Amino acid sequence: MKQVWDSITRPTLVVDEGRVRRNIARIAAKARASGVRFRPHFKTHQSAAIGAWFREEGVTAITASSLSMAAYFAADGWQDITVAFPVNWREIETINRLAAQVRLGLLVDSVETAQFLVERVTSPADVWLDVDTGYHRTGVDWEDDEAAAAIAGVLHGSRLTLRGVLTHAGHSYKEHMAQAVRALYDETVVRLSYVRDRLAAAGYDGLELSLGDTPCCSLVEDFSAVDEIRPGNFPYYDVMQAEIGSCGVDDIAAVVACPVVSLYPGRGQVVIYGGGVHLSKEFITDRHGRKNFGWLALPTDSGWEVLPDRSYVTSLSQEHGVLQVDAADFDRLRVGDLVLVLPVHSCMSADLLKGGVLVPSGEGFAMMPGVISG
Amino acid sequence: MKQVWDSITRPTLVVDEGRVRRNIARIAAKARASGVRFRPHFKTHQSAAIGAWFREEGVTAITASSLSMAAYFAADGWQDITVAFPVNWREIETINRLAAQVRLGLLVDSVETAQFLVERVTSPADVWLDVDTGYHRTGVDWEDDEAAAAIAGVLHGSRLTLRGVLTHAGHSYKEHMAQAVRALYDETVVRLSYVRDRLAAAGYDGLELSLGDTPCCSLVEDFSAVDEIRPGNFPYYDVMQAEIGSCGVDDIAAVVACPVVSLYPGRGQVVIYGGGVHLSKEFITDRHGRKNFGWLALPTDSGWEVLPDRSYVTSLSQEHGVLQVDAADFDRLRVGDLVLVLPVHSCMSADLLKGGVLVPSGEGFAMMPGVISG
Repeated sequence: MKQVWDSITRPTLVVDEGRVRRNIARIAAKARASGVRFRPHFKTHQSAAIGAWFREEGVTAITASSLSMAAYFAADGWQDITVAFPVNWREIETINRLAAQVRLGLLVDSVETAQFLVERVTSPADVWLDVDTGYHRTGVDWEDDEAAAAIAGVLHGSRLTLRGVLTHAGHSYKEHMAQAVRALYDETVVRLSYVRDRLAAAGYDGLELSLGDTPCCSLVEDFSAVDEIRPGNFPYYDVMQAEIGSCGVDDIAAVVACPVVSLYPGRGQVVIYGGGVHLSKEFITDRHGRKNFGWLALPTDSGWEVLPDRSYVTSLSQEHGVLQVDAADFDRLRVGDLVLVLPVHSCMSADLLKGGVLVPSGEGFAMMPGVISG
Repeated sequence: MKQVWDSITRPTLVVDEGRVRRNIARIAAKARASGVRFRPHFKTHQSAAIGAWFREEGVTAITASSLSMAAYFAADGWQDITVAFPVNWREIETINRLAAQVRLGLLVDSVETAQFLVERVTSPADVWLDVDTGYHRTGVDWEDDEAAAAIAGVLHGSRLTLRGVLTHAGHSYKEHMAQAVRALYDETVVRLSYVRDRLAAAGYDGLELSLGDTPCCSLVEDFSAVDEIRPGNFPYYDVMQAEIGSCGVDDIAAVVACPVVSLYPGRGQVVIYGGGVHLSKEFITDRHGRKNFGWLALPTDSGWEVLPDRSYVTSLSQEHGVLQVDAADFDRLRVGDLVLVLPVHSCMSADLLKGGVLVPSGEGFAMMPGVISG
């Protein structure tokens, strides 16, 4: 790794290939054992290069969070893509281009949007009924049988195929116990199955179940009650997932390497080149009650060494990161060194740093090609 | 403006040229009246096109927050650039390229970095002694006469010229009263002058004073006690600055236009295409005690109409924004409409959306060319 560290001059996302492959393999194996489709969400890495590692695990269907992301992966040869975001009417031309090119899945949670699509879509496409099973972000309320049946009714007989019912149980991110996450998974399956069963009773049968946030997919073993899982964050994980219990610190596969630019021994602080535009302003309130914008690690010859959490990122401005550093760690740092920040939310940091990702692989390393910029 | 709004399909930063020009002119006039150099910080807009509007106000010296931003503006013809960030040793090659090309100003707050520059810089450059007047991010403590003199001593007789003492009084962002901001400005001037006077007593005379955060530069009238001001956020302003009192709501010149993708009348919420990757995760705790990720406005034929703050952005995920919308406003919204978000921190949103800025100007509008990507 020494040549990786030596090559870095500015805040740079560094991805540990071995860890990413291990994180992918773990969920892929559980999906295979459960006999369900693994449709990973590619919003975290947004990279064709990392997509290739999923292909090696047999993955052929993916999830994207925007049409531009879907178009990027379609251009890379992915043929079955769900855009897990409510249809944006203003992008109907992009939807039609993509629907002509790949098996496109769209999310619908209103009669208006179902009608809009029926009138405006020019090629066959799949529709997933977006269901709110308790997160309260998007989706038809799981108990609202009428709304679900009305949407199915509008789609019926059109170019659009209602393929299944889908949810994102994002409230799993608020849990901090494996048992609570597993209970939430079970509740989500019950609610999603209820919607499917009510639709079947109304004459719309054969519908699939799709779910899959990273906490549930990391902590649940058996997915056989559903048809596909769509976790996204797990290839990299991050501080937030480690706090939930979805992963261990050693599973975190992406760090932001930041040059040390000044040391303030009097107040035990270190300033790095690495701020909100690199790490995002996302923070956790940690077990010490502090606003924490990231854990810290130091580069080693084979990867990195995570520091005890007495040292952490205490604040961020646009380009500056301020670290509070324990005396024992402070003496190890010099101006010009690299400090590695384990991001609070790797989806945000990876999105911010999509221009400059390094992927250590074996002895050498490469700049990651083709990361999307949209 | 109708053609601007109609052209937007995805989250897009929209800049009101008239407001930006007015915000620039206001501070430029105060600088002229005070007889000080106006060296605006270009980190917020990061745009050659907007830089041109500063040139029309007679500005010839600028501030950047990274070497890549400095290189971008140097390529656009700017000849006097201060990089208001502690020197990053790992970018010494870029520093040397720039120092050969323009009058480059560098920030130093340690003897180690002064020594590093003396040994490694290959062209003449200015150095500003970075002073901590109370913000406690970077800088030599203003009372630490010894450290200041030691740095001046290292630079003496080298290729580097100690040009002055500089501070960023970022703690002004924590104030919410004009009087408090003005008192903080006065305190900052006293502390910065103290450093200059002590250095003069040690034989380093003729040093300039440089300061300039947006709250102070907006609320103070007379800058004659200093030599230059460097505010950055004021061309756009934002919710945070309006909360401080630096500007009125009508001075906010940049909004993020976001398509409405779903309406939830049952809970008075609206979901827009526009999330943390567009707006940043920055929030304020507003006067109602709520986490507030942005105020809302609706497009009009001549610009936008700001909604009462009963309606606001209540949460953000990667691509989703969830709005809490008052009943009276809710009925005005339809799926497919645009909602405009007044960003909490425009520096962050502008950085995230640098690919797609629209600049309404007179009857027509143009995509902003040459926005930097690094």
